[in-house]
Amino acid sequence: MPEQPEVVWHHTRIQPEDRAAALGQRPVVVWLTGLSGSGKSTLANALEHALHERGHHSFLLDGDNIRHGLNRDLDLSPEGRRENIRRIGEVARLLLDAGLIVVTAFISPYRDDRAQVRNTVGEARFLEVHVRAGLAACEQRDPKGLYARARRGEIQHMTGIDDPYEPPHAPELTIDTEAQGVAAGAAQLLEALRERGAV
Amino acid sequence: MPEQPEVVWHHTRIQPEDRAAALGQRPVVVWLTGLSGSGKSTLANALEHALHERGHHSFLLDGDNIRHGLNRDLDLSPEGRRENIRRIGEVARLLLDAGLIVVTAFISPYRDDRAQVRNTVGEARFLEVHVRAGLAACEQRDPKGLYARARRGEIQHMTGIDDPYEPPHAPELTIDTEAQGVAAGAAQLLEALRERGAV
Repeated sequence: MPEQPEVVWHHTRIQPEDRAAALGQRPVVVWLTGLSGSGKSTLANALEHALHERGHHSFLLDGDNIRHGLNRDLDLSPEGRRENIRRIGEVARLLLDAGLIVVTAFISPYRDDRAQVRNTVGEARFLEVHVRAGLAACEQRDPKGLYARARRGEIQHMTGIDDPYEPPHAPELTIDTEAQGVAAGAAQLLEALRERGAV
Repeated sequence: MPEQPEVVWHHTRIQPEDRAAALGQRPVVVWLTGLSGSGKSTLANALEHALHERGHHSFLLDGDNIRHGLNRDLDLSPEGRRENIRRIGEVARLLLDAGLIVVTAFISPYRDDRAQVRNTVGEARFLEVHVRAGLAACEQRDPKGLYARARRGEIQHMTGIDDPYEPPHAPELTIDTEAQGVAAGAAQLLEALRERGAV
């Protein structure tokens, strides 16, 4: 066995505050909610780059790393959507406890589910952001071609078409992506994180 | 609206390599497996302190932050245990992609389930560690009083009593907690992380 470095045994557990302090930031989850095509992913990536360039440590949860991994057993039924958001909220809590700033980009159409996440991660760490664009604009953008498929009846449970979207009553922030561009929206998000003392 | 800092829009996504580089480490999951009472949590906490003191960024997944959160809907049946480990593996993957060194402390009794996690996170990022102590020693330690309750028939599905434990055939490391103390075990783990180039 190679020579061993000295390790001191601690009985205690490293605390979330310790992890955040070591990273020089105060963890917050930026929870982006809105219709498909509203601009959540674009804003999320722009915010992540802005944070990264400023030396902060964040992580993005979105369909790309959740749907085919942790939540691959869930469908788009109301129950499946609810469990989808519950698990994402629990993972966000773990990432926050690890000291990271978390950005999420999910339609998350139901008010109650978002309220449950707020409760899971704690009010002080939850920044609900309504990424707003009208259905007509989202349908025109249709970056994944989902609206077209839903209109042709090829897919069901499309939020805005045959499933409801419940906009937040009192989000911490609203970003209107019909009225302003990505850079301005990302700057708003960064400013909101500054006001919270996160960065 | 307050004056906005300039934000440059990137179309790309921040990659796992970028996150790891920003944290100055190479992410690995230290997967501790062994009987209840074998010393997994104690070793995990000792390793975390050693990493923290050396300026590294890690996160611990264990019963305390998983059982009553993400996996509170699961029972101790073989199917429940399998899904428990699957989800923990998926969360470990996300934490690794976030750049963190991950330490897990779960009995994880089934070989197939651990092999699935190895596959999920990728061979190069998986360090399977058998935390070994005989059943007699574990039962004598019985830190949670679970063996006593199992012997009295008050709880079922106790690994080692009425549920099997499948030890790893070829773990990256075995730590015998009957033969050596916590500090020596944590030092072995740290050395293994050094050999991997993680720290």
